[in-house]
Amino acid sequence: MTTPYQLYYWPGLQGRGEFVRLALEEAGVPYEDVARKKKGMPELQASLDFAHSEHPAFAPPVLRAGEMLIGQTANILLFLGARHGLAPRAEAGRLWTNQLQLTIADIVNEVHDTHHPLSTNLYYEDQKKAAKVRAKDFIAERIPKFLGYFEQVLANNPGRGAFAVGSRLSYVDLSLFQLMAGLRYAFPNAMARQEHAWPRLAALHDAVAARPDIAAYLRSKRRIPFNEDGIFRHYPELDK
Amino acid sequence: MTTPYQLYYWPGLQGRGEFVRLALEEAGVPYEDVARKKKGMPELQASLDFAHSEHPAFAPPVLRAGEMLIGQTANILLFLGARHGLAPRAEAGRLWTNQLQLTIADIVNEVHDTHHPLSTNLYYEDQKKAAKVRAKDFIAERIPKFLGYFEQVLANNPGRGAFAVGSRLSYVDLSLFQLMAGLRYAFPNAMARQEHAWPRLAALHDAVAARPDIAAYLRSKRRIPFNEDGIFRHYPELDK
Repeated sequence: MTTPYQLYYWPGLQGRGEFVRLALEEAGVPYEDVARKKKGMPELQASLDFAHSEHPAFAPPVLRAGEMLIGQTANILLFLGARHGLAPRAEAGRLWTNQLQLTIADIVNEVHDTHHPLSTNLYYEDQKKAAKVRAKDFIAERIPKFLGYFEQVLANNPGRGAFAVGSRLSYVDLSLFQLMAGLRYAFPNAMARQEHAWPRLAALHDAVAARPDIAAYLRSKRRIPFNEDGIFRHYPELDK
Repeated sequence: MTTPYQLYYWPGLQGRGEFVRLALEEAGVPYEDVARKKKGMPELQASLDFAHSEHPAFAPPVLRAGEMLIGQTANILLFLGARHGLAPRAEAGRLWTNQLQLTIADIVNEVHDTHHPLSTNLYYEDQKKAAKVRAKDFIAERIPKFLGYFEQVLANNPGRGAFAVGSRLSYVDLSLFQLMAGLRYAFPNAMARQEHAWPRLAALHDAVAARPDIAAYLRSKRRIPFNEDGIFRHYPELDK
């Protein structure tokens, strides 16, 4: 039997691929993390060759599902959510779930820019001064605005179970877990100071971490530790 | 009869709302541009009150469709595409269209950051030095990478009509028109130097501009001119 899914993502970091990994792990579906196999990197590179695919992806992550090659994190989750019961079936719920995921993507982009405000083609060390300005603004203005928003979304949801959408787990809950874990790793001081304002997000983080499939994944070698090659990077000088 | 759609977006700029306006105009469906009405601003502000909506949006644009309140540009287009024949019906085509739109959203975010690399809470004038560094990198590295990608997508599409997806216009074509128009406005020198490399994108821009509903829209007062409050801003010092 062949594995139903192949995930193409950089091998040494969580990055945006992690949002997809968490959904695949919760769905309990086998997948191949292609670039982490022996000789997997050329396969990853080939998947990014614009000229040789009818549906090329601009950047990883890319998910192969049979004949389909699907790019863009939120788009992959839209697909997996429908296929594995990780999102509502009805149009309104499906769109709302996607809207929340795209807002998570927005803060994830801003996290990336705290350490790369000027160019992804320059080393962090060569844009550290600008990074300090951007990270200070991100901590003071953006973290409270985004997490305050998600906290309010949790408060407004009339469903049972303290999930983001309705009364069942969706891929947005998994992504909010990853967002909280990542922000705590990157900005431990800032989060320790401010976190009391978002008790529902903290509780959701713990509830997701305790789910049997997620807990097993987090203990496994499949979970790459946070590190300074990923999106959530801990540079103490950015977390004063 | 009430108008089927209300669009909530900042009144004096194209911004991300313009991608939604183009889809509504091409669909030929009446809509209210709420904040441009007399006394429309309080309505826009109310639509952004996190606490008083079950499905609050983090930021405009927001589209109201009957009982539904839909946020995030790509998500609104996903909804309109399905409802007005501006995207394929089948899952694979729908996902591919969404994937392209999310990649357009990525470059649009990067365009914004050329003039606001450090903080959206600081004036451009207070981050001009960083903006020059970021804009130089954007022009040299990112415009060619993104537009080269979209040019290849057009070249790879086996469909007739020179569209991005299949053989029919989709909302991605409308958004690529807006992207080309915006980049030419913001970076006329950089685009004049490089544009010969992307003939299919230039032809698509012209084909979209010539569509009857779009041409009528572009001539109307409903089309706000590009200006320095929007995402695509022309600052000569960023386009050397």
